[in-house]
Amino acid sequence: MKPKPIGPIPPGYHALGGELAIGGRTASDLVAEAGGTPLFVYSRALIDARIADLRAALPQRIGINYAIKANPHADVIRHMEGLVDGFDIASGGELALATKAGLDPARISFAGPGKRDDELEAAIAAGVTLNCESEGEGRRAIAIGQRLSIAPRIAIRVNPDFELKGSGMKMGGGAKPFGVDADKVSDLARFLMGEGVTWRGLHIFTGSQALSADAIIEAQNNVLNLADELSNEIGEALPKLNMGGGFGVPYFPGDEPVDLNAIGEALHGRMADLPDSLAKTDLCLELGRYLVGEAGVYLCRVIDRKESHGMTYLVTDGGLHHQLAASGNFGTVVRRNYPIAIANRYDTGPEEVVNVVGCLCTPLDRLADKAEMPRGQVGDIVAVFCAGAYGATASPSAFLGHGPAAEVLV
Amino acid sequence: MKPKPIGPIPPGYHALGGELAIGGRTASDLVAEAGGTPLFVYSRALIDARIADLRAALPQRIGINYAIKANPHADVIRHMEGLVDGFDIASGGELALATKAGLDPARISFAGPGKRDDELEAAIAAGVTLNCESEGEGRRAIAIGQRLSIAPRIAIRVNPDFELKGSGMKMGGGAKPFGVDADKVSDLARFLMGEGVTWRGLHIFTGSQALSADAIIEAQNNVLNLADELSNEIGEALPKLNMGGGFGVPYFPGDEPVDLNAIGEALHGRMADLPDSLAKTDLCLELGRYLVGEAGVYLCRVIDRKESHGMTYLVTDGGLHHQLAASGNFGTVVRRNYPIAIANRYDTGPEEVVNVVGCLCTPLDRLADKAEMPRGQVGDIVAVFCAGAYGATASPSAFLGHGPAAEVLV
Repeated sequence: MKPKPIGPIPPGYHALGGELAIGGRTASDLVAEAGGTPLFVYSRALIDARIADLRAALPQRIGINYAIKANPHADVIRHMEGLVDGFDIASGGELALATKAGLDPARISFAGPGKRDDELEAAIAAGVTLNCESEGEGRRAIAIGQRLSIAPRIAIRVNPDFELKGSGMKMGGGAKPFGVDADKVSDLARFLMGEGVTWRGLHIFTGSQALSADAIIEAQNNVLNLADELSNEIGEALPKLNMGGGFGVPYFPGDEPVDLNAIGEALHGRMADLPDSLAKTDLCLELGRYLVGEAGVYLCRVIDRKESHGMTYLVTDGGLHHQLAASGNFGTVVRRNYPIAIANRYDTGPEEVVNVVGCLCTPLDRLADKAEMPRGQVGDIVAVFCAGAYGATASPSAFLGHGPAAEVLV
Repeated sequence: MKPKPIGPIPPGYHALGGELAIGGRTASDLVAEAGGTPLFVYSRALIDARIADLRAALPQRIGINYAIKANPHADVIRHMEGLVDGFDIASGGELALATKAGLDPARISFAGPGKRDDELEAAIAAGVTLNCESEGEGRRAIAIGQRLSIAPRIAIRVNPDFELKGSGMKMGGGAKPFGVDADKVSDLARFLMGEGVTWRGLHIFTGSQALSADAIIEAQNNVLNLADELSNEIGEALPKLNMGGGFGVPYFPGDEPVDLNAIGEALHGRMADLPDSLAKTDLCLELGRYLVGEAGVYLCRVIDRKESHGMTYLVTDGGLHHQLAASGNFGTVVRRNYPIAIANRYDTGPEEVVNVVGCLCTPLDRLADKAEMPRGQVGDIVAVFCAGAYGATASPSAFLGHGPAAEVLV
């Protein structure tokens, strides 16, 4: 049986007494304390390390925003509060989470192509910056601001004519439902300012989940050039520029981590040579997956070990209802294996080739195909890595009635 | 702009005063009563009609089971109670829903490859039939039954060597995590009976979402033949045979409904000529999607109308967080358009070609690509059909914090 490769286990995970340890605690201890599997474990130390690496590589004047949608767990949001410079939200629900976590609304911006009136109102009342996605949305925000007697804080989200090459999801280049086409931005900006909104600048997002530093550097250069052009067209310096993110994490065999130093060097070069229009602009990157994706592990337990037509299956109590992306069913064409391990025998080498599946009654529910693992037994704990972003909330947790997984930050 | 075709609107939907009506109520009335969009509406009348059609076509001795996972809304389950002969559950969570709805446990069977001990215990204590998926699960059930002093009711789920041809999801043929390979079934059955379980027969499920009557007839013939063989090997008549389901619904352009009469005729023929081993067997089909899929509509509202690079976008307050399958991101290789309409101008012909998208900040969030529709405006209600099965619960409702949609049975 020829095994299929698995993705790279992220740095920072080690064995403790033979077991996978997260935040200095063994997987079985964490599971026992949580009351069982399935369980998402997020590591403070790994989040801290990732942000420290970013701070070391990036010019000091470039802020880091956390996109809450990547992982909106309350403890994660609160932990981020002291680590990042701003937050991005994508809905009224995320605004409520941000408010509950006590985040300063002046540090929050709100992007999303379909903001309802009640969401605009809550954001304007709170003093959150709207990343305006269309003229229609701008007009609705102005009307709501007038009713509330509050000048809305508005930036414009730009749909640029270029894209982030090699990104998992392209958010620019051609027709898009996101933002305002670049050639219409300056008219809209002048209109909004004429209506008395508090002008907050631009948000230019080009794509996500890119691993090539060259592609990211090119996109960042394009973003800075476009921001300069638009600022000149608008006739006003930009108070703020959200340069987007796009930094990916390695999920699959052969994926290499982003070369942070190369990106940092290129940005240092650009910062030394910024045009006047951006000289005093508050610059930031918006990152979600890159900050938390590799800091999370999904733990589930082997419920059954069975053979069918010569294949061995480890059936777990987890599955695509918690980790849809790992099953290969969320916007994926070809299924590949996420990094995976038997957590309670983390320092044991491969002993067999197995399929690891979830507990759902559907052939879609796969966690690993033909993976080389130590021999798995009923009761063993399976760890699926890269579960810190777009895991628990980006999966159909009500599917088949098993309910959501527990989550813990350690 | 060349439009892309949309899927066929299911039979039974009509205009009332120009609007889409469901259960005799207009979409805008239903939305107003529910307090807004997004909203799933399920039609009692269409569920009733579907089951009446099945009863008319099928031999009387073939029962109809409802697979709760297709739509576990409490009102749908209660409505089914008087219409079908049995229920199939897929988790302890669904057992709790069934119990809450007051269903008779003797009419319930429980399939799922990763049943936890606490789920087995709850099912055995309630008197639900377990569709046993492996020898290991059988042994666990026996141990739990001994502890509870209850003889577990057990059927064996068979992994057959054949599949349902053309099915959207194949559940048989080759190595599978589901059920027990056919050649191991008789040994396991004799072992279980020797341990004193209440023998409930076999469950043979071959696939789902097939539209070809010929393929379904062939699979049913194979199922009956295999059941006869296994019954003889076991040396005991089968008390019950769950023949599986597999009847699909048309979602996409060109899809044709299942020819129910052809299936009914073939089954009438087989019933007249059953082997002794099945003469007294309680036979049933297990259907989920086929009973409820076309009886549901997902309603969302147009929040923005915008142009980008010559394309028109209708941005709604719905999206893939409620209707993942319609977005084309759940186990789909090539995205195609579900049936869709402007509900409040249901009798207006096509006037433009538009993209209909959800409110989420991801390019995956599409409800229709280049669809020909009446001109859509902010405030219009968009109806996505075929939303009655695997909609609300098979979608990542926590994604981006917008929360779940309301659901109503009318």
